Amino acid sequence: MVGHDEKPIINSLLDADFYKFTMGQVVFFHHPGINVRFAFRNRTKDVLLGRIIKEEDLRRELDHVRTLKLNRTEMRYLRGATIGTEQMFRNEYLHFLEHQLHLPQYKLECRGNDFTLEFEGDWARVIYWEIYALAIVNELYYRAILAGKSKLEIGAIRANGVLRLAEKVKILKENPEIIFIDFGTRRRFSRDWQDYVVETLAEELPESQFRGTSNVWLAMKHGLLPMGTSAHEMFMVLAGAMDTDDEAVRASYQEVMRRWYEHYGFELSVALTDTFGSNYHFRVMTKRQAEVWKGLRQDSDDPVAYGEKAIRFYQSHEIDPCEKLIIFSDGLEIEPIVKLYRHFRGRIKTSFGWGTNLTNDLSLKALSLVIKPVMANGRGLVKLSDNPAKAIGTPEDIERYKRIFGYQEGEYKECKY
Amino acid sequence: MVGHDEKPIINSLLDADFYKFTMGQVVFFHHPGINVRFAFRNRTKDVLLGRIIKEEDLRRELDHVRTLKLNRTEMRYLRGATIGTEQMFRNEYLHFLEHQLHLPQYKLECRGNDFTLEFEGDWARVIYWEIYALAIVNELYYRAILAGKSKLEIGAIRANGVLRLAEKVKILKENPEIIFIDFGTRRRFSRDWQDYVVETLAEELPESQFRGTSNVWLAMKHGLLPMGTSAHEMFMVLAGAMDTDDEAVRASYQEVMRRWYEHYGFELSVALTDTFGSNYHFRVMTKRQAEVWKGLRQDSDDPVAYGEKAIRFYQSHEIDPCEKLIIFSDGLEIEPIVKLYRHFRGRIKTSFGWGTNLTNDLSLKALSLVIKPVMANGRGLVKLSDNPAKAIGTPEDIERYKRIFGYQEGEYKECKY
Repeated sequence: MVGHDEKPIINSLLDADFYKFTMGQVVFFHHPGINVRFAFRNRTKDVLLGRIIKEEDLRRELDHVRTLKLNRTEMRYLRGATIGTEQMFRNEYLHFLEHQLHLPQYKLECRGNDFTLEFEGDWARVIYWEIYALAIVNELYYRAILAGKSKLEIGAIRANGVLRLAEKVKILKENPEIIFIDFGTRRRFSRDWQDYVVETLAEELPESQFRGTSNVWLAMKHGLLPMGTSAHEMFMVLAGAMDTDDEAVRASYQEVMRRWYEHYGFELSVALTDTFGSNYHFRVMTKRQAEVWKGLRQDSDDPVAYGEKAIRFYQSHEIDPCEKLIIFSDGLEIEPIVKLYRHFRGRIKTSFGWGTNLTNDLSLKALSLVIKPVMANGRGLVKLSDNPAKAIGTPEDIERYKRIFGYQEGEYKECKY
Repeated sequence: MVGHDEKPIINSLLDADFYKFTMGQVVFFHHPGINVRFAFRNRTKDVLLGRIIKEEDLRRELDHVRTLKLNRTEMRYLRGATIGTEQMFRNEYLHFLEHQLHLPQYKLECRGNDFTLEFEGDWARVIYWEIYALAIVNELYYRAILAGKSKLEIGAIRANGVLRLAEKVKILKENPEIIFIDFGTRRRFSRDWQDYVVETLAEELPESQFRGTSNVWLAMKHGLLPMGTSAHEMFMVLAGAMDTDDEAVRASYQEVMRRWYEHYGFELSVALTDTFGSNYHFRVMTKRQAEVWKGLRQDSDDPVAYGEKAIRFYQSHEIDPCEKLIIFSDGLEIEPIVKLYRHFRGRIKTSFGWGTNLTNDLSLKALSLVIKPVMANGRGLVKLSDNPAKAIGTPEDIERYKRIFGYQEGEYKECKY
C-alpha cells in the first residue's frame, strides 16, 4: 500500500469528492458560461514542491485524467443516487457528464522551487479539476519522498500508519456516539492508502458511527454512502460573477443558498458559513432557513466558539439546537474530535468531516495544498474566512468585501448570537 | 483462476442473470402470492453428482447465499438502470429487493449417486435461487474434479481454456459483424473464470461486437451492459397459476407477453417462443406485436429452420425481417455461430446468447444442469419446447398442453410460415 506504484493516480472520474457533482449540477443548470480560473497554492512554504515533483510526472498524471470518461457502471451509480425517492442528478446533467465533460487544459509552469498550476475555462467543466489535481500533487510528492528510502524505512512508515489508524479506531470504539465522515481525498497519502483506511473503518465501525466517505469511487467500491456538503467556491464565484455593485455581491449569497435548497432539499442542507465570515451568515440566514436547513459546517477559527454561537443563533430564533447539526471540518484530529463531541453533547448534534489527519497520518509531514477559484468573468475573487490567515483575494478586494459583508476582525467571538 | 478457492462461490446477489430481476419485478407487481416449486435436474446422467459433491459443501454455499443482502452500491446500480429516460426498476420493487428479499430455505436430500434440490415458496422470492444454485453446483463439481489433479494438470486445463478463448476471439475478430452476449453464468467453470472471460472479451472486442453479459455483477464490475431476455418460467408458472380451464391456460400466454411489454417496452421486447412450441407463438403473436417487438429468442431445435420460419412469419405480416432480430441461445459454439450469422446475414438480424461453451470450455466435460419450475399453486407445470427431449411435465400434463396449444411433433419444420 505504501511504495511506488506505476498505475495512474486517478483512474476514475468518480475518484473525487461527492460535492463536486452536487455543486457541478447546480452550476450546470443555473450558472452556465461563467469563465473561471482556479489556482493551486502550496501553503506549506518550507516544502519546495518544484524541487521534489518532476514536471513530466505531473504532466503525465494530469494528462491521464483528461483521457478518462465515466463508464456505464459509474453512470448508473450516479443515476441511482436519490433525494427522497427522486433522482438526485437530473438526466440532462447526467448526459452532460457522460458525453460532454471534457476537462479543460491545465496551465503548468515550473520555476525552480515552485510551480504554478492553473485551470481556466467554463466553470461547469473546470469545477472537477480541484480534487484530481490535489490528489495527484500529494501522491507524487509522497512517491518522491519514498523513492529515497529503504524498504525497511518504507515498512516503518506503513507500520506507523497502521498503528495510528488502530489508535483512532480504538478511541472511536470507546466513543461510539461520535459520528464522522472521511473527507480526506484531496490530501491523502495515496489512493491505495485512502482505500485501505476507508475499508478498515467500514469493517471496524458500524455505519451509525462511520457514516461514509466524500470519495464517490470509494463509496461505490465499498458500498458506503457518498457524502458531502458544498464548498466556498459556490459563494466566491457567484459573488464575482454577479458583481455589478455591492448590493449584487451581497445578493449572490442568498442566491447560492436558495439554489442549493431547491436542488437538494433537507437531505443536503448543511450550510458552509464562513466564506465571508460566519457572522454575516448568522445575520442573513432567515428564521425560516434556520428551521428547515439541517445544519451548518464549521471550517475555520475556533470550533468551540463557533458552536456556542450557533447554539445562540438557533435559540434566538426559538429553534431547539438539539434538532440541528454542526459538521466540523477544519483540520481535525482525534483528540479535538472527542473534546468537541463531549463539549456539545446533548446541546447540538455534531458530526466530523475528517480529512488530512485521517488519510495521511503515517508519520510523514502532511502538506497544506489548496486549489481555489481566483477569478470569475474577469473579476478577482474573495474569501474572507473566520480565520484571516485563510483569506483569499487582493488586499483591495478583501477590504471591499469586508465592507460589503460587514466583516470585523475580532468581532467574531463577541458576536451577540 | 483455476484451482481451489475458499471464498464463497456467490458473494453478491447481483451475481445472477439480469433477467431474474426484470422477471422478478413483473412477478413482484403482478403475480404476488403464487406458491411455486423449482427443482434441480442433472441432465448429464453419467456424472453421479451425489458421489462427487459433498453435501456439507453444498449446504455451506447455499446457506451463504441466504446471508447476502444488496448493499448501497448494488442498489444504486439497479436504481440507475433505465428504459429510455425512465427508471427500469420501480421504487417499490427496489425497496423489496433491499429490505424484504429473503431467499426461502432450500430442500436438499442426498441419496448416494444423486441428490434432490428443491426451492419452494412465494414465486417473488424463489425466482432468484435458480442462477445462484446452478453456479454453486457447477463450481463445486469442478473444484472436486480439480482436487484430484496435480498442479501441472490444473495448469494444462487452464492453458486449454486460454487457448480456446484465444481461438474464439480470433474467429470473432475475423467476423466483426457477429454480435454476441455472455449468457454463461449458470454453467460457468467458476466465478473467477467467467470474470476472466468477460474481462478478456471486453478488452479484445469492441462493444459493437461483445455487447455485454447477462451477469449483473460482472456487468457492474467491468462497466458493461447487463443484458437478458426472459425465461420459460414466466409462461410455465402463469399457465399453471391461471389454470381454471384450457382457455385460461391459453390466455396466460398473452398475459405474459402483455405485462412484459408494458414494463420494458421496445428495449427488452425479445420474445422467447418455444415454451409451448414456437408454432403456437407464431400463430398467436399478433401483427401489431410482430411490428413493435424487437425480435425473438431461439432456444431449442434446429436454429436454421427456426430462422427461416421467423422470416416467413414476418413476411406474412408484411414486416421487413431485416428490421427484426433473432437471439440464438441454444447450446452455441463458435462454428455454428459463424454459420448461423452467415446464413442469415442480410435477411434478418442475429445475435448470440452464448452460454456453457463460452464460460466453461477448458477441456473438461461440461454438465447440463437445470433448475426449472415444476409446480405452481399445487399444479404441475409444463414446458413443451421445440425439442421434445427438453420437455418438462408429467406425461398426462404434457398431452393436455399439447392439445391446448395445438402442438404437433414433426409439424414444426413444415409449418407454413
